Amino acid sequence: MALIVQKFGGSSVADRDRIFNVANIVKKTHDAGNDVVVVVSAQGDTTDDLIAKAAEITKNPSHREMDMLLASGEEISIALLAMALTEIGVQATSLTGWQAGFRTDRTYSSARITRLDTERIESELNRNRVVVVAGFQGLNRLDDITTLGRGGSDTSAVAIAAALRAERCQIFTDVEGVYTADPRKVPGARKLAEITFDEMLELASLGAQVLNNRSVELAKKYGVELEVISSLNPVPGTIVKEKTKEMEGMLIKGVAKDTNVAVISILEVPDEPGMAFKVFGLLAQKHINVDIILQSTGRGNNKDLTFTVPLEDADKAVEILKEYQSRFGGDEITVNKDVAKVSIVGAGMQSHSGVASTMFEALSEKNINIKMISTSEIKISVIIDRDNADRAVSAIHDAFIH
Amino acid sequence: MALIVQKFGGSSVADRDRIFNVANIVKKTHDAGNDVVVVVSAQGDTTDDLIAKAAEITKNPSHREMDMLLASGEEISIALLAMALTEIGVQATSLTGWQAGFRTDRTYSSARITRLDTERIESELNRNRVVVVAGFQGLNRLDDITTLGRGGSDTSAVAIAAALRAERCQIFTDVEGVYTADPRKVPGARKLAEITFDEMLELASLGAQVLNNRSVELAKKYGVELEVISSLNPVPGTIVKEKTKEMEGMLIKGVAKDTNVAVISILEVPDEPGMAFKVFGLLAQKHINVDIILQSTGRGNNKDLTFTVPLEDADKAVEILKEYQSRFGGDEITVNKDVAKVSIVGAGMQSHSGVASTMFEALSEKNINIKMISTSEIKISVIIDRDNADRAVSAIHDAFIH
Repeated sequence: MALIVQKFGGSSVADRDRIFNVANIVKKTHDAGNDVVVVVSAQGDTTDDLIAKAAEITKNPSHREMDMLLASGEEISIALLAMALTEIGVQATSLTGWQAGFRTDRTYSSARITRLDTERIESELNRNRVVVVAGFQGLNRLDDITTLGRGGSDTSAVAIAAALRAERCQIFTDVEGVYTADPRKVPGARKLAEITFDEMLELASLGAQVLNNRSVELAKKYGVELEVISSLNPVPGTIVKEKTKEMEGMLIKGVAKDTNVAVISILEVPDEPGMAFKVFGLLAQKHINVDIILQSTGRGNNKDLTFTVPLEDADKAVEILKEYQSRFGGDEITVNKDVAKVSIVGAGMQSHSGVASTMFEALSEKNINIKMISTSEIKISVIIDRDNADRAVSAIHDAFIH
Repeated sequence: MALIVQKFGGSSVADRDRIFNVANIVKKTHDAGNDVVVVVSAQGDTTDDLIAKAAEITKNPSHREMDMLLASGEEISIALLAMALTEIGVQATSLTGWQAGFRTDRTYSSARITRLDTERIESELNRNRVVVVAGFQGLNRLDDITTLGRGGSDTSAVAIAAALRAERCQIFTDVEGVYTADPRKVPGARKLAEITFDEMLELASLGAQVLNNRSVELAKKYGVELEVISSLNPVPGTIVKEKTKEMEGMLIKGVAKDTNVAVISILEVPDEPGMAFKVFGLLAQKHINVDIILQSTGRGNNKDLTFTVPLEDADKAVEILKEYQSRFGGDEITVNKDVAKVSIVGAGMQSHSGVASTMFEALSEKNINIKMISTSEIKISVIIDRDNADRAVSAIHDAFIH
């Protein structure tokens, strides 16, 4: 008898019919002889509705009270799902985050799990009951309710799977798995049978909004096998694991586009030691994440520093840089918001020659100019004009995936 | 520095404006130098909406899951009220029922409070914070969430006031206090400055839906002074306490009408010992509450047994009596659902002669026939035709309250 953890997002439990759809998936898994722990998010728009209620009261709600407010959302969905399971003949018990044993640090609104006491979940499983757990929430040492922040329910599910050594953690979504590119934009996009944790992390950070990075990191750390699978059409999805079988003719796992990016340049910065630290230390201090960095070899004693930041932080970054420019000098500071990052991801690419050149050739053939290039062990990213992004993804995808 | 407990019902926190209205009442009390614990119910229609969601899923929801579902309602209102208090400059902390220390028995949906651990509330008060507690809910020994049933938030408030020896427990409602009769129907109805617990209990059970009986009983048991007061117009309301000052010319405290009543008669029952036990023991076993009982002195060896039951139980009662009629015999079993109970309540009436006759005279003058009479230390009730009920209340009210 295996233990399966199944996680369903808010849209999967948005109304009566969707709830019974979920209940039937769970029943099927349970009837097949498995223990099942189900993790659910708040129904459909519930969280947005609660946020709107708070916004009517104050522009600056306390994080503690926000967490108290939002945690009510999952309490509704777990109770309703437990009722639906009972209605179709599956004995079920709902548990809030704290009842399920989630203990967190004190960071309201984006708490980290510090401990998971599994006694209650295990005692319910031992009574042959399906356990329905509220995702996204826990309890801190003050006995106050906390929430885990964005993608928190995925993290809750992986944590349970890790603590109980579940055979698999299934993340049910609206898509059938992880694709080599966005299937709505690239007709030839293919669903992957398997992908490694590292590849998934790169794809997620590149804008493939399937799995939250934090949950993938946790799954990698504890070796929890994930499956991304559709709740509407539960055919086998994509397995995310440490190592995947090498597939012939399938060097890269995906092509991703990220338009949440801007390029900032500082021209004519003096070529002195510690210059990079001065600039990027300053931005880190202001909580601005810098991604790709490119430094020109310089003319004379000066060089140009170019880097990317998230689009929404671009103006703030430029403002900060101008305020403190006396620290590092340089001439003009420019920003370009009309860019996109297009990347290919694949664990084996480093050992295969020609991957980068195939990518650049595909772009060249479409007459797409490359502004910046960044490479890592399992990823190659280029910065191009945003207008060219979709064409670039298609061209690269066609060049690699047949 | 006194401690005041203030309880606000669902309509008092139904929307943003009502929440700020409540916050301002609390602020005023706090600014006057009092410690304040606020108990709130779920917003407006929230509970009904949640019940409707459950009804979509199943006709027979488990009580445990129902309690989990409904408890989310107060979590929303406590968080929003705490935010509103902070917004107007009052430091506040919201606490769920279990965080506030409410421990209950295992009777889901109508749990009894077994213990109240006040450490958390006290520690928040010691930090000069207003504590906003979710009414209606607690935690049982399984660490499962329970709810206290009808009027549960009043009970929560009284329990906190009792445990912390609060100076007063204010129950805010839509009315300005307890009236001598329904002010919408009896123009001369007067607001009472004071009323005893016993009088309040009789009035509540007679259909004056101001305070839940369970909370009044608890207040009486622990000597908690209650005040029924309007949240829209917070002028002094009605104080409910053990003893009130005797008021000249104010012999009775109220006239109440109860239309949730039916009269059942069993004719020609053999006049044998144990007959009453056979009939009423049977009904008690089936959880049917019998109120007024009238037994005719009998003709020959038989007598007629007449009694009242709640209207909704009348058909079930007749059915049961017919099924088991062989046990006690008798002839025809009749039921009259077109009746009402009209009562006067007043702690001093027993020692004043003429109270009953004044009541009967008032009815006689209006040509209203009395079907049954019942008296207790602080109450006289009559059963009359329902059509006459409002006229009867007015006539009796005018006879006593000038």
